[in-house]
Amino acid sequence: MEANVAGAFGAVLRTLRIEKKITQEQLGFEAGLQRKYISLLELGTKAPSLATVLRVAKALNVEPGSLVSLVAAKLDEL
Amino acid sequence: MEANVAGAFGAVLRTLRIEKKITQEQLGFEAGLQRKYISLLELGTKAPSLATVLRVAKALNVEPGSLVSLVAAKLDEL
Repeated sequence: MEANVAGAFGAVLRTLRIEKKITQEQLGFEAGLQRKYISLLELGTKAPSLATVLRVAKALNVEPGSLVSLVAAKLDEL
Repeated sequence: MEANVAGAFGAVLRTLRIEKKITQEQLGFEAGLQRKYISLLELGTKAPSLATVLRVAKALNVEPGSLVSLVAAKLDEL
């Protein structure tokens, strides 16, 4: 399950970031995370903690619950 | 931030579990997690991964996004 969760989160994160037209570096700066870590999250290589999900949601200016709903929907597709 | 997130998640988890009238042992069984780990989550001693949040939401029969919205609201109170 954990690998799928990481993959689903990464796909949603990448989609939202590109929609917002910001770079991994900008997102990392806003979220207080390394650009490299954002990259690993987007690739699904690293699985996020809830704290990371909340930081990223805030940085992307999306409701945390909406972000997680998108991840749950993506998981159902995988 | 991480400590607050763990505390907020723990408080929400405990409230929902008691509302559903199930024990930590039953929740652990449903979620595929140890009872002791459920206890540490409720106490805010352990911070959950996103994968754990999704498992717990499923076991409690609540939408993952709703669970995370409750945690975000609780965090704003803390």
